[in-house]
Amino acid sequence: MTMSDATRSSAYDALTQDLTRRGVDVATVERSLRQQRIETPSWAYGNSGTRFRVFSQPGVPRTPFEKFADAAEVHRLTGVCPSVAIHIPWDRVDDFGALRDYATSMGLTVGAINPNLFQDDAYRLGSLCHPDPAVRRQATEHLLACNAIARGVGSDLISLWLADGTNYAGQDSFIERRHRLIDALREPYADLRDGQRLLVEYKFFEPAFYHTDLADWGMALTLCQKLGPRAEVLVDLGHHAQGVNVEQIVALLIDEERLGGFHFNSRKYADDDLIVGSTNPFELFLIYVELVAAGAAATDRIAYMIDQSFNVESKIEGMLLSVTNLQEALARALLVDRPALVDAQRGSDVLGAHRVLLDAFQTDVRPLTAKVRLDLGGEADPIGTFRASGYADRVATERADGTAMSWT
Amino acid sequence: MTMSDATRSSAYDALTQDLTRRGVDVATVERSLRQQRIETPSWAYGNSGTRFRVFSQPGVPRTPFEKFADAAEVHRLTGVCPSVAIHIPWDRVDDFGALRDYATSMGLTVGAINPNLFQDDAYRLGSLCHPDPAVRRQATEHLLACNAIARGVGSDLISLWLADGTNYAGQDSFIERRHRLIDALREPYADLRDGQRLLVEYKFFEPAFYHTDLADWGMALTLCQKLGPRAEVLVDLGHHAQGVNVEQIVALLIDEERLGGFHFNSRKYADDDLIVGSTNPFELFLIYVELVAAGAAATDRIAYMIDQSFNVESKIEGMLLSVTNLQEALARALLVDRPALVDAQRGSDVLGAHRVLLDAFQTDVRPLTAKVRLDLGGEADPIGTFRASGYADRVATERADGTAMSWT
Amino acid sequence: MTMSDATRSSAYDALTQDLTRRGVDVATVERSLRQQRIETPSWAYGNSGTRFRVFSQPGVPRTPFEKFADAAEVHRLTGVCPSVAIHIPWDRVDDFGALRDYATSMGLTVGAINPNLFQDDAYRLGSLCHPDPAVRRQATEHLLACNAIARGVGSDLISLWLADGTNYAGQDSFIERRHRLIDALREPYADLRDGQRLLVEYKFFEPAFYHTDLADWGMALTLCQKLGPRAEVLVDLGHHAQGVNVEQIVALLIDEERLGGFHFNSRKYADDDLIVGSTNPFELFLIYVELVAAGAAATDRIAYMIDQSFNVESKIEGMLLSVTNLQEALARALLVDRPALVDAQRGSDVLGAHRVLLDAFQTDVRPLTAKVRLDLGGEADPIGTFRASGYADRVATERADGTAMSWT
Amino acid sequence: MTMSDATRSSAYDALTQDLTRRGVDVATVERSLRQQRIETPSWAYGNSGTRFRVFSQPGVPRTPFEKFADAAEVHRLTGVCPSVAIHIPWDRVDDFGALRDYATSMGLTVGAINPNLFQDDAYRLGSLCHPDPAVRRQATEHLLACNAIARGVGSDLISLWLADGTNYAGQDSFIERRHRLIDALREPYADLRDGQRLLVEYKFFEPAFYHTDLADWGMALTLCQKLGPRAEVLVDLGHHAQGVNVEQIVALLIDEERLGGFHFNSRKYADDDLIVGSTNPFELFLIYVELVAAGAAATDRIAYMIDQSFNVESKIEGMLLSVTNLQEALARALLVDRPALVDAQRGSDVLGAHRVLLDAFQTDVRPLTAKVRLDLGGEADPIGTFRASGYADRVATERADGTAMSWT
Repeated sequence: MTMSDATRSSAYDALTQDLTRRGVDVATVERSLRQQRIETPSWAYGNSGTRFRVFSQPGVPRTPFEKFADAAEVHRLTGVCPSVAIHIPWDRVDDFGALRDYATSMGLTVGAINPNLFQDDAYRLGSLCHPDPAVRRQATEHLLACNAIARGVGSDLISLWLADGTNYAGQDSFIERRHRLIDALREPYADLRDGQRLLVEYKFFEPAFYHTDLADWGMALTLCQKLGPRAEVLVDLGHHAQGVNVEQIVALLIDEERLGGFHFNSRKYADDDLIVGSTNPFELFLIYVELVAAGAAATDRIAYMIDQSFNVESKIEGMLLSVTNLQEALARALLVDRPALVDAQRGSDVLGAHRVLLDAFQTDVRPLTAKVRLDLGGEADPIGTFRASGYADRVATERADGTAMSWT
Repeated sequence: MTMSDATRSSAYDALTQDLTRRGVDVATVERSLRQQRIETPSWAYGNSGTRFRVFSQPGVPRTPFEKFADAAEVHRLTGVCPSVAIHIPWDRVDDFGALRDYATSMGLTVGAINPNLFQDDAYRLGSLCHPDPAVRRQATEHLLACNAIARGVGSDLISLWLADGTNYAGQDSFIERRHRLIDALREPYADLRDGQRLLVEYKFFEPAFYHTDLADWGMALTLCQKLGPRAEVLVDLGHHAQGVNVEQIVALLIDEERLGGFHFNSRKYADDDLIVGSTNPFELFLIYVELVAAGAAATDRIAYMIDQSFNVESKIEGMLLSVTNLQEALARALLVDRPALVDAQRGSDVLGAHRVLLDAFQTDVRPLTAKVRLDLGGEADPIGTFRASGYADRVATERADGTAMSWT
Repeated sequence: MTMSDATRSSAYDALTQDLTRRGVDVATVERSLRQQRIETPSWAYGNSGTRFRVFSQPGVPRTPFEKFADAAEVHRLTGVCPSVAIHIPWDRVDDFGALRDYATSMGLTVGAINPNLFQDDAYRLGSLCHPDPAVRRQATEHLLACNAIARGVGSDLISLWLADGTNYAGQDSFIERRHRLIDALREPYADLRDGQRLLVEYKFFEPAFYHTDLADWGMALTLCQKLGPRAEVLVDLGHHAQGVNVEQIVALLIDEERLGGFHFNSRKYADDDLIVGSTNPFELFLIYVELVAAGAAATDRIAYMIDQSFNVESKIEGMLLSVTNLQEALARALLVDRPALVDAQRGSDVLGAHRVLLDAFQTDVRPLTAKVRLDLGGEADPIGTFRASGYADRVATERADGTAMSWT
Repeated sequence: MTMSDATRSSAYDALTQDLTRRGVDVATVERSLRQQRIETPSWAYGNSGTRFRVFSQPGVPRTPFEKFADAAEVHRLTGVCPSVAIHIPWDRVDDFGALRDYATSMGLTVGAINPNLFQDDAYRLGSLCHPDPAVRRQATEHLLACNAIARGVGSDLISLWLADGTNYAGQDSFIERRHRLIDALREPYADLRDGQRLLVEYKFFEPAFYHTDLADWGMALTLCQKLGPRAEVLVDLGHHAQGVNVEQIVALLIDEERLGGFHFNSRKYADDDLIVGSTNPFELFLIYVELVAAGAAATDRIAYMIDQSFNVESKIEGMLLSVTNLQEALARALLVDRPALVDAQRGSDVLGAHRVLLDAFQTDVRPLTAKVRLDLGGEADPIGTFRASGYADRVATERADGTAMSWT
């Protein structure tokens, strides 16, 4: 939907008048929206797919530098994506200082460092949990190397997804693996410097199909408790069993002071890695309602990161839509009438309380998020502007030769 | 959220101007909204609960007549709920003609007749599928009696939910039960008059926990194929396994010319019977997108019925919210830019097509549905008006004595 | 399947010879089987059902004393069920000393005390988490009363299932409810005497359908951590999301030294409360494999309790089958060739390790468990003996008058 | 577990005596077991994995011929696997006559032909359902080519898995895609010769994550109804939503005379493609109980095929275990006391009927299946014999050079 500047301005005026009438302090809402930050992952700019096929797309980056160029385009259009998560070894370069400088030159920083403990041949039966101490040592060394890379690029986050698990009952001992994991993490944990944090991600299943060593938030949390305060839990929205109330887990991890960050995406079935908000935008809104309720606890330390796979759709457009979905989710959450909500909750007015959320959710916040993007130097209509910009055609030509990057 | 008439009028003007700019024919949309009909179920006005507890609420009807009085209040406030489904024997009265006349006097009609094949002691191991022919005969007789009641109250719908199933592997034969079911339904089916239809509901599980004789849409459809054209499938939104794409089933049943009706509600886990749209309003919108796409196929013959349990919330308010949620879902679906959608689909523009739906979904349609309710003689703010009306207090007093109706 | 004594003896000889050949120390296995204890719940002897119907059965107890009589029959036939869990207020009697004495006279003891925090009208929106402090106080008082009852009947276990939760997003605050819960439990926790323990049960959903305050093991565990060492987690096999690896959770809770007990049952869909082992006996075996692996950690303090609903089948027969299923699961787990398993696991022999479990699981252990029951004074064929005994007919006659007990 | 001949013989004698005592006609059971046939898939001998990693194993075939060599080893050891399904283009060879001759020389035949409609770049948004008629034509041509290959290699089965679907709501029209699919299949269907059949597989999700065009058995069945009697449904055990009662679907498709075949595997979460029977052997048994009950309907025309991925375990050993699991499942199902089962079912003896199944399931049938394998020229202990044979080491050496085959 394209819209003239005059139309947009008029829509913004109508919305803000309505919000003001409803008692919303629009200036405060806009300030919060301007402070929102979303980290995009380098790997989402590369090719991805399912076990059945990775379809190539034209213009896909051939180097980590080109991934940062695409990420910079996303930041340019949205204004809220100044950092880029990298994955080692997919984004290994000879000179990480050069990567950091390139990022800086594009107005970006290097975000979370994501170690890879699942693709080396040695890891067929696990990495940090593997029965063979030599394999565990290899995994530990990789984590130490990632700590060093983090320091080199100025990142304070190590984001660990442990793919370890088993496929058959009896294949290995749950408890021995757990103890191996705790032991193997002590050295990389101790190696963290002040300000550095280890984010521990859990996942219900895949690539292991009988058990996963860190299968739910409880397993991640108890591991973090054993490691120490620099270890925190990372919530990937697609890593739960069907029906799990994710917003409750988010609230509870904040209450435990152990919510380290998010991997945003959405799913209908398993870990589908679809565009965040595309299957149930109400659930995404509810997660942001918890984050807004937590106030400062949710803004200073939590890493808001996207982790998606654009298998069949344009990658940059998919990222732009993800970012605007996240902006809209936050915007709606900021409109929740907190005093009315608390009154209804304390007064046992079930539907009254629910309807306070509905009032916020049903509001069409797009004029507000468009305005905030413009304030930040981005675009009112990022996807429309991107389509009109010729960027996709240009990189398709520039990057026609060479090998597009993917997960391998 | 209460709103002055002037504010509402101004919001309506702003919305319709925006829609007109987007190419929407607002008059046509409003006409479709005025034609929407939603049947409310008598039993939702009575007490309900879980196996652990049925909590009583004040003012709950003590007779089927009082249920119709509450339903009339819902229709008065919304303008789109002129019929009421009844359940036999819960709503059995000595004189169904009197019930029909009472309904008429309230501006209502009697909707679908819902036979009960799950509460008689004889039905412990099934009804139409029971191994004992005497029990099957009892169930068949009940269906025949319901056919007669339907004719007596002027209803053309029998809405059959078959709770039959087993709890343990081996308890009974899937296939013998299937054949018993088909045989037992032949007589009640043959007894249907011109214009009468038998709606066959399926359900994934509960109250049976190993197998359910009609567990999914395929089992209901193949049964209907065997019975004849007056048998059609009823889709209850809460009767599917986790993750099932319900809108696809809706589209496919329309394509098979066998979609007979809906039982609207929502669920996060099992057959939770929550307020429709309360867990994933986007999914409800997508169902309506299919219905709107099907055009006439979806308006003339499909029975749009609510089937919910207001266990912890006010029943009439819960019904009002359900109705407005359904109005808003339809309104959003009517705003979908069909030519743009078709263009994007045929042009393999994945995100372009998806965003056409998002544009419609994100629109705040509440001014439009409020206007339509007013056009129909209802209220802009049904719940607010209801709360202010004193109805709840009045019936709480009037109905203080006697026994509130529930599922038994 | 009935079997002559000679046939049974010959089957036992063949089995034990085969086991001895495989290196199994049969005497040790039998000793472990003789030490197995399974607590049956009083409420399973009463009528139960779904929200749609509670079907009555003949001969159902009319008093807590008659429940103990049925439980004594189960113990008499199996030899491993000497304790009976009770539920307050369902099993409230004027004189708990008399109940204790009656139990003793039947060779039984009173097991876990199960407080009821979900059926009082006050608990419509929760109990210990309720927004109203008066309701929370009522719930706390009930827990204190249950502590006293426990002491009066000589039980050291309070088994708390908290049904609290909400049905709609926004209905209440996750975190405020959590804090209310922790606060409300402090006094009953402090009231526990030496040797008494509080078992905290979690449940995925039902009766609440949006969120449950203790929805998974992580929520129960973090609560126990806050309360202290006398609070432990109770695992009900039917209280998990689909696909959850329950045996892993069991192992992990033992490793955390917080596994307090089980509620055994089985499920295919939700909390179906079917006979334990009836939907996936391999999963039940795997749980026992973890318990056997944990050795002493799993025998001294863990409460092994059944929690089931025999909705359509004979209650006492269903209980007998449950108990024999549990005996067989333990027997199979005791046959696992641990040295071979460890060798295969450490040697990364995936299928070798898995097949060690299969070897144990596929063994027909029924001659062994029959022998153990006889050793304990029970019966080789408990259900056959029960059917032949006339007990069912006798109590059907004796208990023909009066009101059968159920969940209310 | 290795076992001497004498021990095995003695175990067989003990078992058959026991079975005879229970009224089982052992000779008939053995005859049925000798008639069992299981088709193994060529692709399972090649490397496989998840989207995260395909781990290579030593000795993996480099050509379709080498896959047949491995399959011949499986047949040699088990006696029941004389045919091998192939996948086009993975198994495309210049001269299919040569492949057929090679198969014959190994005692094998070529089984079902599996077209690939998911890996060509053209298929990113679908194949037979694609919006572009040129892509649909390409897919149709591939099916026609597969028909020709089938005739060339003497196979009468085309086994079609359609991966088509969409990732985002609105991406394409459910109904237009359905009509495209029906239209595109008419020509390949009409091209089938007498005796040839088209097996239509359904799958809940993956690789598409919003909707799958053939997502459940109902969608496959209604498609087959439209095509004609040579189209039948294929049931892959891993292609259902959580909790779905697969044995009921099997029974129902037989009743509809549309069950064409199986893809055997097992799953705990999604389409995990694990060794059949490894997560719930009781469920596999129940499927065979239905097949045995269907008698001739289940033996003549149904294709029993394995479809698995041995990602972390030895591929040939995994196949051997799969085959013996299937033999044991059938053996147990053949032991069900049908007259007793029918008596109990018709007499409403819930637990009596269930226990008839338990009696069969709990029987240790391994001596019986070992005997049958020996009768057929196979091995009592296929995996033990294979491990001792040196085959794995030999092919690891022989196939050290060149590229191992996998899914691409």
